[in-house]
Parts: sequence; structure tokens; C-alpha cells
Amino acid sequence: MTTVAAYAAPAAKAPLERTTIERRAVREHDVLIDIKFAGICHSDIHQVREGWGEAIFPMVPGHEIAGVVSEVGPGVTRFKVGDRVGVGCMVDSCRECEMCRAGKEQYCLNGQTPTYNGIGRDGEPTYGGYSEKVVVDENFVVRIPDGIALDVAAPLLCAGITLYSPLKRFGAGPGRKVAVVGMGGLGHMGVKIAHAMGAEVTVLSQSLRKKDDGLRLGADHYYATSDPKTFEELRGSFDLIVSTVSAPLDFAAYLSLLKPEGTLANVGAPEDPISLNLFSLIGGGRSLAGSMIGGIPETQETLDFCAEHGIGAEIELIAASEINEAYERVENSDVRYRFVIDTATI
Amino acid sequence: MTTVAAYAAPAAKAPLERTTIERRAVREHDVLIDIKFAGICHSDIHQVREGWGEAIFPMVPGHEIAGVVSEVGPGVTRFKVGDRVGVGCMVDSCRECEMCRAGKEQYCLNGQTPTYNGIGRDGEPTYGGYSEKVVVDENFVVRIPDGIALDVAAPLLCAGITLYSPLKRFGAGPGRKVAVVGMGGLGHMGVKIAHAMGAEVTVLSQSLRKKDDGLRLGADHYYATSDPKTFEELRGSFDLIVSTVSAPLDFAAYLSLLKPEGTLANVGAPEDPISLNLFSLIGGGRSLAGSMIGGIPETQETLDFCAEHGIGAEIELIAASEINEAYERVENSDVRYRFVIDTATI
Repeated sequence: MTTVAAYAAPAAKAPLERTTIERRAVREHDVLIDIKFAGICHSDIHQVREGWGEAIFPMVPGHEIAGVVSEVGPGVTRFKVGDRVGVGCMVDSCRECEMCRAGKEQYCLNGQTPTYNGIGRDGEPTYGGYSEKVVVDENFVVRIPDGIALDVAAPLLCAGITLYSPLKRFGAGPGRKVAVVGMGGLGHMGVKIAHAMGAEVTVLSQSLRKKDDGLRLGADHYYATSDPKTFEELRGSFDLIVSTVSAPLDFAAYLSLLKPEGTLANVGAPEDPISLNLFSLIGGGRSLAGSMIGGIPETQETLDFCAEHGIGAEIELIAASEINEAYERVENSDVRYRFVIDTATI
Repeated sequence: MTTVAAYAAPAAKAPLERTTIERRAVREHDVLIDIKFAGICHSDIHQVREGWGEAIFPMVPGHEIAGVVSEVGPGVTRFKVGDRVGVGCMVDSCRECEMCRAGKEQYCLNGQTPTYNGIGRDGEPTYGGYSEKVVVDENFVVRIPDGIALDVAAPLLCAGITLYSPLKRFGAGPGRKVAVVGMGGLGHMGVKIAHAMGAEVTVLSQSLRKKDDGLRLGADHYYATSDPKTFEELRGSFDLIVSTVSAPLDFAAYLSLLKPEGTLANVGAPEDPISLNLFSLIGGGRSLAGSMIGGIPETQETLDFCAEHGIGAEIELIAASEINEAYERVENSDVRYRFVIDTATI
């Protein structure tokens, strides 16, 4: 066991504060990672505030982890001391079910183990990346290619894969028109990745406030959804729409922007049920899909793809003492586009 | 112009009665078809009763038409007198848009012309198959292979293609588990076609009343959805579910029966909006899709596939004088499984 410094919420809705936690001794297949940077994901805030149901406290959030391997267990074959590595939203899964065998551990039929706010298969609570070090089984660690700095790589472990996976699955690429709804931490990654995949990219954002950024990051077009003319003008335009917003959308309106047989993929999750007229789907053979992060092989693929295309997140680097303030700013959509904690400041 | 006998609803919600209508003279690319059989589709009843909005009267319903070519226009190349042919839900489309060029005329961006309750591109109302003869452009006529009798072929033109298209698009086949929700005119075709495609087929029906039929037609399993244990037992089982019912479903419950990344395709259309928690889709990367009939090439493919596999509809053949009674019985789900009108009795 190693005692390490961390930032934790001691109870639901409480501010995060500096504390110490125990990390397990390195086992046969574990790697010990010196965490360098940890991204702040909106879902960290949801969980600290129990917006998605009862949670485990104290909670050390953080599932966008970038660091360097500082020790490896005797059975580790994939990593060595000094390797630049990342950990995302999962640190374990059953490894035996159909989904795990297919490299889709995020859909593990026996339940994957979340990086924090979970109970590991050893019965111990998991603690996330707002911390100096973490111990993770090598099978849930990915390699960060040399081409990406660790700070801008951290958000690829959740925001990046969350967008990469549906963009790839639903065919973003040359000759395809893709819209990204929402220009935040997730959305801005969607713009960069879809553009790098060769698609014609449109941002659908509430206002034109971030238009310059959107075009700079790779969007070909940028529309305000607060303007009803947007929905007239873009009717039937897109092969794929990826919605990153958690606010309730007028789904019939967004579905009407799809070409026949197009797909609206949701990675943002409205807390309340939506109302949907099925004729919005049937009339044009359209699909409404959900997507949740990605498996470990696809997470590695995301990092490799991003390195190859020079893609990192747009970040605001903060000290650990600024986490609570950053949470407020995330809730006010006041970040361009991802806060990343310099864990040297913990 | 030719005067032909037909059964028509003179006004919304009125009983159908014998009348005469005019069919246009055969043009360059037209074929004149002696109608032999016409299926009764639930959507005929919806439209006669204006359940889907304002309709055009008098209305001659019928878009499951099987007959024999009795005259061809001078430019017709695909058919000759004596050919066994069918007409489904469309008799024209723009033929120029992306969808028409892709053989997906049902999603024509400029609007396809329905076989009845529509206005043709010549400005004249269209009249359907409850009639002695019909004149249709050869591009919207399909060939009925010799292997299928005309009476059991008629329902393939709507019910058959409506199930064939999503089953094929979403990958029904060997090694795949497919559920069909509803064991009616559409559902029973789904069972036969999915079975012929090689899938493992489960029927999800309100009761076990039609279980023997389901198993005889090709289902491997048959469950009652009125039994809550069904939803526990089948949790996470299916690659694909095709729902044929128009009654409002508990979509979260049906989505929970899908494997991760599975698809629930709707061809039945509840009139009211549904309520849906998007976590039902996101958590397992699932999709809720719509599908509407199929294009002309795929309709021909359906007929060829069905002929090859000895598939016709299960029908109750009726005289035209029984149409109104048949409508009542369809509304009471009292038909096994499709009424087909012997048009010689008109």
C-alpha cells in the first residue's frame, strides 16, 4: 500500500479538498503510474453531486488520466518504467463475456469497473485521477504516443474516445456530412476528429459565440440552433449527427436534419425522458442511437489517430486548488474547452 | 380512359361500396394490369378513417396488388402481356434525387406518389388495388416469380417488404438472434423471412394464443409479453428486434432485451409520441430505428427471396362484399394473418 495525496469530495455536493488515499501494492499485472495531468469531465461533477444517483464517498474523481509508468508488476508485458500512458473511464471488467472478448469492455455484460466511484473486483473502492499516483491493471492502460503532449492528451481518454467511437461506427469520413451538436469539451473533440476523418463538419451550437473557434478547429460550417432558420436551411442535410448536449433537445427537429437512413447518435444524456414521435424515425428510415465511451482497443486507436493527426484537446491548465472554481465554470459552460489539472500542484 | 369496377370509401369513415373509377389510357412506359388479388393492410383502414390525417375521397384502398399484365405501352421494356406482376405502396417518385437514384424511392426527397390516397405527378388522384385493373409506370411494377401463387404473393408487396428491409439492413442471418414483436399481418411475415435468412427467431406476442402458428411458421421461441418474467429471462438476448405493433410499447423494457449495440427497428407506428430515457440507448450503445417499406429494387429482391424460400403470406381469401366485415376483424386482430380480396368478385 502507498499513501498518496489526492483531491476528494468528502460527501455528496461537498467541495473537493486535499486529502490522502491508499493505493494498492503493485500486483502481478499492475502498473504504477505517476499521474501528470487529469482532465475535468462534466460527469465528475454529476457524480460528486449525485446527479446520477447515490455515489461512494469520499470520492476522488478523474477518468482522463495521463502520466508515466514508474513501476511494473512481474507479469506485465505491455509497459515498462518510463512509458507515457493513459487511463480512461474503466480500470477492469469481467474479461470473459462476449463484449469483453470483442474489446468492448465498456459494455461488459457483468459490469465494468469505473475508474472512480466504483467497487473493484477486489471489493475495494476505486479512486480516480485527481491524485499523484494510481495503480491499474496493464490491460486497462493505453499508450500515449510521443506525438501528443500529456496535458492535451488527458481529455482524449474520455472526451476523445466518446466522440471517436460513434464517429467511426456510424461512418464519418470523406463525402459524408456530419454535424456536431454542442461546442464544449466533448463537441470540440468531435469537430477535430470528424474533420481529421475527412468528413464535412457542421457545428450546431446554441449561439455563434464560439464560431471562430469552431472554424479554426476544423468545422466547415457553424450554425446557431437558437435561430429557427437553421432548421429550415439544413433540413435533410446530414448523414450523421452526434449530440453532445445533456439539455433536452427537440429531437424531432434534429432528426429532420438527417438524410434518409441517417443516424442521430447521443453521447450527451438528458436526465429526464424525452418525448419522441416515431414517425420522425420511420418516415426517413432514421436511427436514434446511444454511445458510451469505447473499449480499450478503440481507446488506443483514438490516441494513435489523434497523434497521427496532431490532435489534442484545447485545454485550460489549472492548479488543484482551483478545482472547485473550475467546477462552477464548467457548469456555466465557461471553459475553452477542457480544464486539466496539473497534478504536480496537488 | 377505361372505366373499371372498384370498391371505394365515398367519405371518411364511411363503409366501402362498389363503384366505378376511370383508369388512364396506357402511356409510353405504362403497363395495364388485370388485378387478381389485393391484400388488406391495416394502413388501408387508418387512411379510410383519416387516422393519419386528412385524406382524399372517394378512396379506393389497396397497395398489395398482384395481377397479370394485359397491355403495355410502346416504350415498355421490362414487361410483356401475360407477365405476373405486383404493385406495392408507390406508383411514382421524382426519379432524380439521391434516394431515387439509390433505389430507395420510398424516401424520395421530393415525395413519392402513394398507390392510393395520393395525387400523381399528372395532377390526378391515385386509386389502389381494390379494383379490376390498374395502370402503372413499369418502373414501379415488380415481377412475381412463378414459384409463388398470386394470392399469397399480394401481401409481400407491403407486409413482406416492410419486414424484409429492416431484417436485411440490420443483419438478420445465421448466428444472429432476432425478435419479432407482434404476430399479425406484418409479424408473421417477419417470422418467415427472418427464419429463411437463417436467424434464430423469437416471437414476442401479447399472449401465447398464436404460439403453434408461430413455431410452425419458423419461430424457434415464442414468449408472451404480458408475462413480466419474459423481460427478465430475455434480458440482453437479441441482436435485433423488429417491432410491428402500433400500440404504445414500454420502449425501455424492449431495449433492455437487446445485446449491447443491438437495434430495435420500428415498422409499426404508435400514433402518440413515446417517452424514452436516453440512458436506455447510451448504456449499451443501442439504437432505435425506423423503417418504411422498401425501394423498388428491394421489393423485387423480397419477391425473389420469398419465391426461392417458398414463402407466401398466410391468408384468408375473401370476396369484395366482405371488405367492411374484414376491416372490423382486422381492428380486432381477428385474422390469420392477412385478408386478401379475390378481385374477380368485385
